[in-house]
Amino acid sequence: KEKEEEQRLCEERIRTELDRVVDFWLKYSHDKEHGGFFNCLGKDGKVYDELKYVWLQGRQVWMYSRLYRTMERFHRPEILEAAKSGAAFLQKFARVQASSGPGKCAFCLTRDGRTVKVQRTIFSECFYVMAMDELSRITQDKEMQVKLLFISYISWLMSGQDLFCLCSPQADAESMMDRLIFWVQTDSSDLGRPQLPGDLPINSMAVPMMLLCLVDQLTEGRTDVAEKYKDLSGWCVERILQHIQRDGKAILENVTLNGKELPGCQGRLQNPGHALEAGWFLLQYALKKGDVQLQKTAVDKFMEIPFHTGWDKQHGGLFYFLDVDGHCPTQLEWNMKLWWPHCEALIAYLMAYSHSREPVLLDRFKQIYDYTFTHFADEEHGDWFGYRSRQGELVLDFKGGPFKGFFHVPRCLYMCEKLLDGLLERQDS
Amino acid sequence: KEKEEEQRLCEERIRTELDRVVDFWLKYSHDKEHGGFFNCLGKDGKVYDELKYVWLQGRQVWMYSRLYRTMERFHRPEILEAAKSGAAFLQKFARVQASSGPGKCAFCLTRDGRTVKVQRTIFSECFYVMAMDELSRITQDKEMQVKLLFISYISWLMSGQDLFCLCSPQADAESMMDRLIFWVQTDSSDLGRPQLPGDLPINSMAVPMMLLCLVDQLTEGRTDVAEKYKDLSGWCVERILQHIQRDGKAILENVTLNGKELPGCQGRLQNPGHALEAGWFLLQYALKKGDVQLQKTAVDKFMEIPFHTGWDKQHGGLFYFLDVDGHCPTQLEWNMKLWWPHCEALIAYLMAYSHSREPVLLDRFKQIYDYTFTHFADEEHGDWFGYRSRQGELVLDFKGGPFKGFFHVPRCLYMCEKLLDGLLERQDS
Repeated sequence: KEKEEEQRLCEERIRTELDRVVDFWLKYSHDKEHGGFFNCLGKDGKVYDELKYVWLQGRQVWMYSRLYRTMERFHRPEILEAAKSGAAFLQKFARVQASSGPGKCAFCLTRDGRTVKVQRTIFSECFYVMAMDELSRITQDKEMQVKLLFISYISWLMSGQDLFCLCSPQADAESMMDRLIFWVQTDSSDLGRPQLPGDLPINSMAVPMMLLCLVDQLTEGRTDVAEKYKDLSGWCVERILQHIQRDGKAILENVTLNGKELPGCQGRLQNPGHALEAGWFLLQYALKKGDVQLQKTAVDKFMEIPFHTGWDKQHGGLFYFLDVDGHCPTQLEWNMKLWWPHCEALIAYLMAYSHSREPVLLDRFKQIYDYTFTHFADEEHGDWFGYRSRQGELVLDFKGGPFKGFFHVPRCLYMCEKLLDGLLERQDS
Repeated sequence: KEKEEEQRLCEERIRTELDRVVDFWLKYSHDKEHGGFFNCLGKDGKVYDELKYVWLQGRQVWMYSRLYRTMERFHRPEILEAAKSGAAFLQKFARVQASSGPGKCAFCLTRDGRTVKVQRTIFSECFYVMAMDELSRITQDKEMQVKLLFISYISWLMSGQDLFCLCSPQADAESMMDRLIFWVQTDSSDLGRPQLPGDLPINSMAVPMMLLCLVDQLTEGRTDVAEKYKDLSGWCVERILQHIQRDGKAILENVTLNGKELPGCQGRLQNPGHALEAGWFLLQYALKKGDVQLQKTAVDKFMEIPFHTGWDKQHGGLFYFLDVDGHCPTQLEWNMKLWWPHCEALIAYLMAYSHSREPVLLDRFKQIYDYTFTHFADEEHGDWFGYRSRQGELVLDFKGGPFKGFFHVPRCLYMCEKLLDGLLERQDS
């Protein structure tokens, strides 16, 4: 009873936070003139820079679409419109021309959509896929198709750009996904990174994690697509599991392609938040598959290890980076407390507890919850702060920046609300 | 009298520190097996990563050569040998093959010299020039030339690499310098950065600063070379002065090519340490030229402004980055206290005081000196720490890392010792 009451209070707090976070971004981030979203928002929502980051544009489209589709109270026209507007901006401007490789997406755009920077990685494209696929689940309508056709045609008339975006969001997502798979599994030369003799390909946690997340996204409720990507998800899981090192006692961020430890700082790097995120991706996958062994691995290795090594016993919170041998990491921000590892940890432990009902997992959730809500939530203006020092001082006070948008916080609150509703045996309302 | 005694104590401390810093790097950084220097040294000198960073390799060659040439007590065979060994490693491995543009230098190498990373900027090449030019001033000998010829020939036999390094350090420095000037003033496409419609060329402080420093390096005692680069130094000064903005009240790190303020975070960025470094580069140049107006500008604008805006009134020390309008910078490390801005500030104010004998400039020097020696020097193991939090806690405890090598600390101590000796009217000993 007492436990249930506690969970009910927690659910209420999370639900209220989610509402406030959605309100904040709806109110301050929309660019009504050029479309898309402002990403750089001060603590009170004021735009302090007009650059548009493609990761964050894609994530915001995804989040709006997911909320619209799956939560009754967010099934509102303004949220649908915002998702569509963001997607149209992405389809029109995110893909750069062939000099940066066919199908590459920009990393950063000017307010009016001109390319500022292209990364030689796959992540802009990943968030593009997430955005388009989730949007496709709410806009399988003629009107959207006609709009896209019109935009493509005008853009082609004006600039001679190719007509690639002349397709529905779902087709767009799938064709980008296939390109991603080609880059990762077959030939990465289109990414534009020259092959250098001292820079051998590595298995970086981010890549299989991200692809597993995309497979989950693309296959939901679509058995034909699930069949298509069946091998890929197995490949992703295998690659993720290669990061378990040191006789099962450490999760390392970078390993060789055949799952061995790499030399130097790169090889010794631990990123607890990333491991925890991989943990709930894996657990989610293992629950769907009914793979009991993998469920156990997800919790024991990808949650418990990063939690124990990553938690700051002195000041609380999760470190950003650590070195497995206790050397000082070379990242200047290694000991800072960032909002997103805490978001991932909350999802991970609540998902793990929901499944197993092991009390210790709920204790972990509560410990992380207390730190997170006292350190990142902002009672005054809404949305969350993102960056505190090891000791807990606020170091960067903005709500949106080049790597912080409308994503980790609302996804965490959304997932946790759903999970708590499940625990409380309530329906979403 | 009392002031003189204070300066004498300060000089002694600085001289002792310089000896300890040189000893530290001589003892721990030399790679006797593959040549060149280990850069990643823990607080006690232990190598924690074997990667070799070309900026730092070049800077270490420069520093050893300069100490050997200009300070009697460092005119020792082991220092000459170390400089030569580092230069041979650079000549053999730093230049990458044509796919990354002709003449490009790597940013990072494996221990045995294979390229790990190439930056699409000019700075590896700049430090290559500094290294080769300074070395050329101590090794205009047949033996060096014969060694180089032999190395080049072997490397050509084994790999079919071009025979570009078949030249003396001075010729090597000058040909690289000419390539740098071409990239900066005529055509940067060899750097490998694609032209993007939203990424217009800007005047970033680092570029004219660095080139002015190189002109100073290359022209010392060489009137023919001075004649050759006369226009370039004028161009550099003009470009540096464009960073004075806001009616002369701010130094901004990035401006447009015609000296206007840029929009957004990039345009509002201040880097006090960089401005102070530009300050002493400018003052040095203006003193040589006898340009009284420029001397005043160097001190009033490039020292006093960054000192006043950059000094942390609450906890002391210079911030790493600031936003001119008081927004929070987006760099996670913005409020950290790094060793190198303090090194540059010490040189700047001691040079300014040595010239003008204005007491207030000596007061600034003392203020920075007190913070620097209490926060960065390490009594226990020698050499300096590099990274403290705003409040003063040690955040990264290594002595060498990807951006900290044998350069800012010994250059600062070397310059300050020379300046104090000048003030004390002593000869170098």
